This record gives sequence, structure tokens and C-alpha cells, in this order.
Amino acid sequence: MGERLEQQVAFLVEIDRLKGVLRQTLITGSERRENSAEHSWQFALAALLLAEHANEPVDALKAARMALVHDLVEIDAGDTFVYDTAARVQQAEREQAAADRIFALLPADQAAELRALWDEFEAGATPEARYAKALDRLLPVLLNYHSRGHAWRAHGVTADRVRAVNSRMAEGSAALWDYASALIDRAVADGYLHERSEG
Amino acid sequence: MGERLEQQVAFLVEIDRLKGVLRQTLITGSERRENSAEHSWQFALAALLLAEHANEPVDALKAARMALVHDLVEIDAGDTFVYDTAARVQQAEREQAAADRIFALLPADQAAELRALWDEFEAGATPEARYAKALDRLLPVLLNYHSRGHAWRAHGVTADRVRAVNSRMAEGSAALWDYASALIDRAVADGYLHERSEG
Repeated sequence: MGERLEQQVAFLVEIDRLKGVLRQTLITGSERRENSAEHSWQFALAALLLAEHANEPVDALKAARMALVHDLVEIDAGDTFVYDTAARVQQAEREQAAADRIFALLPADQAAELRALWDEFEAGATPEARYAKALDRLLPVLLNYHSRGHAWRAHGVTADRVRAVNSRMAEGSAALWDYASALIDRAVADGYLHERSEG
Repeated sequence: MGERLEQQVAFLVEIDRLKGVLRQTLITGSERRENSAEHSWQFALAALLLAEHANEPVDALKAARMALVHDLVEIDAGDTFVYDTAARVQQAEREQAAADRIFALLPADQAAELRALWDEFEAGATPEARYAKALDRLLPVLLNYHSRGHAWRAHGVTADRVRAVNSRMAEGSAALWDYASALIDRAVADGYLHERSEG
């Protein structure tokens, strides 16, 4: 059997570990925390479906490919909660080291291709990356709303912080930020999210 | 807010339920059963990476899109174990009804587009569908091997049946079937899989 196929299979087996990386969001209708693999799947489908709402014309397939690879570094670096400011400082360094190891499992041409996609997503400097980052913020807002604000309440996150962190969604899609912003207001009205911390 | 975005979001929330549909395979390094959403993610990445092994030239991105939607019908119809012959008889009817309901949540143009992808995958009559179906068979063989044959042993599935069911992989990729066939032999040698039923 070819060396390339051996490397590709080793990569596919290694990335199985992303199914064990837990996020703070719950899946809807369940007490189970979402993992980064199933999140990546939903993100990729969202990328295929919501491109018409991006601020700029985007290649939806490229954004979907970004979605599939965007969290692979978490196999080594873990998931960092978007509201955990302290952890996010060291996150970039840990994720770079993870990318160096994980993508290198593949044949060199494919390693370079996936690494370039991930770098582009991280840099957030192209229309596709801005669109993809908007979706990566939209989905947890959706799931948090539809699990009655579980992750927000569990971590004492207030509406002002949810708005501050997620308003960057507008850089990729003003329409999706309008939607999310209205949903955050509704979460406050429904009692799923506190407007500001009490006491 | 636009009616289209409302429909698209309703679809994205509805498909969250695929994360609760359990397959027979275990994720590697764990006792947890795999769900169909995380399987679809791994399948989509495999589709992007293994196209060079398909029997015919294939559009890898189209196969990846098939992967993302191929199990959505399981939200209503459930997962059918590939070795459960009785259940597979009624599977097609249940899945058609599920497709009618789930894709119709989307705006009509996107519903038609995703439905066409799913129909093409199911029919297995194009190079991309044959390639995708080969991957959909390859992944559980890989994961079963790397979880020491758990699902095979739990259901008393023997090597002759594993070979019979999975040899159709060769219709999409002779190279991947060669690989899988060797892995099945190794599973027998390693004691993860019985050659035939005993007694």
C-alpha cells in the first residue's frame, strides 16, 4: 500500500480525538456538552447555506473547508471558551504548536493545503475567513439560546459581554449580527441571560 | 429579518438533533458510541483528502458536501446498522419520508439542492456517490479496528460478513478496499474479529 494512504489514514484516525474535545455549549434537547467535531459539522453546513448573508461575495465551499479544519488544533490545545479572557492569551501559541504537529501527519502537499486554510481562518483577513468567523460565533449563540442559556448562566456571562464578544460577527455579516443581536435581546427577555451581573 | 434567514436558522437548529443519533461504532480511545454528526464531519474531511484513491476522477468538494448531508434523514429514521439486514429493508421508505420533511425546512432552492445531493448519494450512480459510499464504509472499519473490534464483537459479526458487506467499497475505490481488506485480515490476526461464527 502507498505511503500516502498510510499517512492519510493515520491523520483520519488521529483526528478522531476531536470528538472528545468538549465545548461549553450544550446540544439542544440534552444535558450533553457539544464536542468540537460535531460543532465543525454543523458549522460546515452553515457555511454552505448562509453565504448570501455575508457582507462580501464569498466562496461558500472554501468557508465550509475552513469549518472542517478550524478546530483540529484543539486536539492538542483544547477548547478555549470565548469568554475566558485569561486562557485566550496563551491560546495562540498552543494552537500554533498543535497545527505544526497535526497537519504534518498528512502528505506534505495536503498538510500545506490544510494548514493554509487554517492560517487564513485564524488571520481573519479574507472575506471567507470573516464570514466563517461570524458563523463560528453565531452557532453557539443559537445553541445557547435553544438550551435556555445554559452555558451563559453556568459561567455568569452577562448580555453586555455576549454583545461585546459577538458584535465582531458584523465584520463578516451584518445581517447575521442583526439576527444574533435580536436573539440576545430575546434571551434577556426570556430570562435565559442576565443584562448585567447582579451585586 | 428575512424569511429566508428564519428558514435557514430553523434548519440549523433542527439538524442539531443529528448529534443525538448514535451509531454502533465507538469513538477511539473511549467507551462512547459515535454519533452521526461527528461521523459526518470525519467523512467530509476524508472526502477532501482521499479523492486520489477513487477509481474515477471525482469532485472531492461535491463528495464532501454529500458527506455533510448524507445522514440528516437519520434525525427521523434513526441509524441502521450496516449488518442489520431486517432493518435495512424498511430503511429506504423511512428515509424518504424523513428527507421530505427535513430538507423542506430550507428555502425551496436550497432544499432542492441538498435533496438532490442526498438523492445522488443514495442512488450511488455517479463517481462522486460511489466514492462517498466507499468512504462511508471505510470509516467504521477503521474505527472498529482502532477500538479493538468492539462493534463487531458486540453484535457477533464475523469476518466473512465484514468482507461481504464492505467489498462494495471497491466500486468506488479499489485502493481503499485493498486497504480495508488488509485491515480486516489484521483484525482477525489480532483477535478483534472472528473469522466465522463458532458453534
